[in-house]
Amino acid sequence: MRISQLSEATGVPIPTIKYYLREGLLPPGEQVSATRSVYGAPHVRRLRLIRALLEVGKLPISAIRAVIEAVEDESKGVHEMLGTAHYALSPKTEPEDTPEWADARAMVDELIRERGWRVDPAAPGRDELAQTIVTLRRLDQQVTLPDLRPYAAAVGGLVRDHEMSRIPFDGPRESAIEAHVIGTVLYGRVLDVVRRLAEESESARLLADADGLPK
Amino acid sequence: MRISQLSEATGVPIPTIKYYLREGLLPPGEQVSATRSVYGAPHVRRLRLIRALLEVGKLPISAIRAVIEAVEDESKGVHEMLGTAHYALSPKTEPEDTPEWADARAMVDELIRERGWRVDPAAPGRDELAQTIVTLRRLDQQVTLPDLRPYAAAVGGLVRDHEMSRIPFDGPRESAIEAHVIGTVLYGRVLDVVRRLAEESESARLLADADGLPK
Repeated sequence: MRISQLSEATGVPIPTIKYYLREGLLPPGEQVSATRSVYGAPHVRRLRLIRALLEVGKLPISAIRAVIEAVEDESKGVHEMLGTAHYALSPKTEPEDTPEWADARAMVDELIRERGWRVDPAAPGRDELAQTIVTLRRLDQQVTLPDLRPYAAAVGGLVRDHEMSRIPFDGPRESAIEAHVIGTVLYGRVLDVVRRLAEESESARLLADADGLPK
Repeated sequence: MRISQLSEATGVPIPTIKYYLREGLLPPGEQVSATRSVYGAPHVRRLRLIRALLEVGKLPISAIRAVIEAVEDESKGVHEMLGTAHYALSPKTEPEDTPEWADARAMVDELIRERGWRVDPAAPGRDELAQTIVTLRRLDQQVTLPDLRPYAAAVGGLVRDHEMSRIPFDGPRESAIEAHVIGTVLYGRVLDVVRRLAEESESARLLADADGLPK
């Protein structure tokens, strides 16, 4: 297909496609004359992936470039490739050199260890969770390992039994990583909203009768 | 205590305290001379609540004002008061007048109905979840009621057995709402990070062996 048809098929404007070509995020089409190239299904897939990283993952172009490089480096296994996208989605956390921080980080490591999770010692989520614990404690909320365990247990089952099965591992690398990014971000949003709905319901169950509101 | 001591006790700068006084977010102190007022524990509590709404909840001043009004209106029961803060934390979603939207919203309502949750028909979370489903489907992800059930089940237990017990209902109204806002936002972050850690682990378990990575 021509660039105009690629634009129609994906909804990505032609100037944006040209920008991705210049930046090397999209491989060049097959040159059929001095002024014309044609594009195929791999270009459609790549544009879908870029759109997912940009619009769903809200990633900057530099992070998208890193993910695309991992997709193109076929010497990288699928786990490593998915990890590149996954880490790019995690906010960067700057560890503090304080005893409070060290204590929170040790608790995170212990949580992961006791669940038997295979998580890289340098995974950004470890510091992000430590940071959240430090913030809670500075707001005078007590946080201990038993407070975290139910969260780990709840999502552990969810991820094992439901999330990974949504990733198509038997197709092109682009499709696996696109599904992984969409699932991580959007099912994260599902989890967050459903939790707030459950909170409203539980508050109603516990308090509305006392408040004299209708059941 | 004087305003300078109130500032020290809470870490809120004096000009900011004066701004909250002018805006009516903080009740006036007791006037002890023409130029001097004294402040007490209720002012410390109120400043903590404002800080939680602002820094943890990222709420604009207009939303903070609505929450403070609910705190001060003692004719409102605790469930209604907590609901004001809770809804303020939810992003506003504009429903679309499309069949896709109607279908997604009907699925959300059915999910809530089948779990027996007591959620207001106008709760913003209903539209927010419908919006997320519409987005997933536009990205060609199949989403059916059975895809949502495990999320509702996982957080339902978490909220019932762990979250509500962290709210001190027997103290001042400010303290209950402060704990509710902190818990909703920061334990939401805990849930999100822990889920990403579980994803990494599950990806490693399923794929790293195939990739030839060390266990």
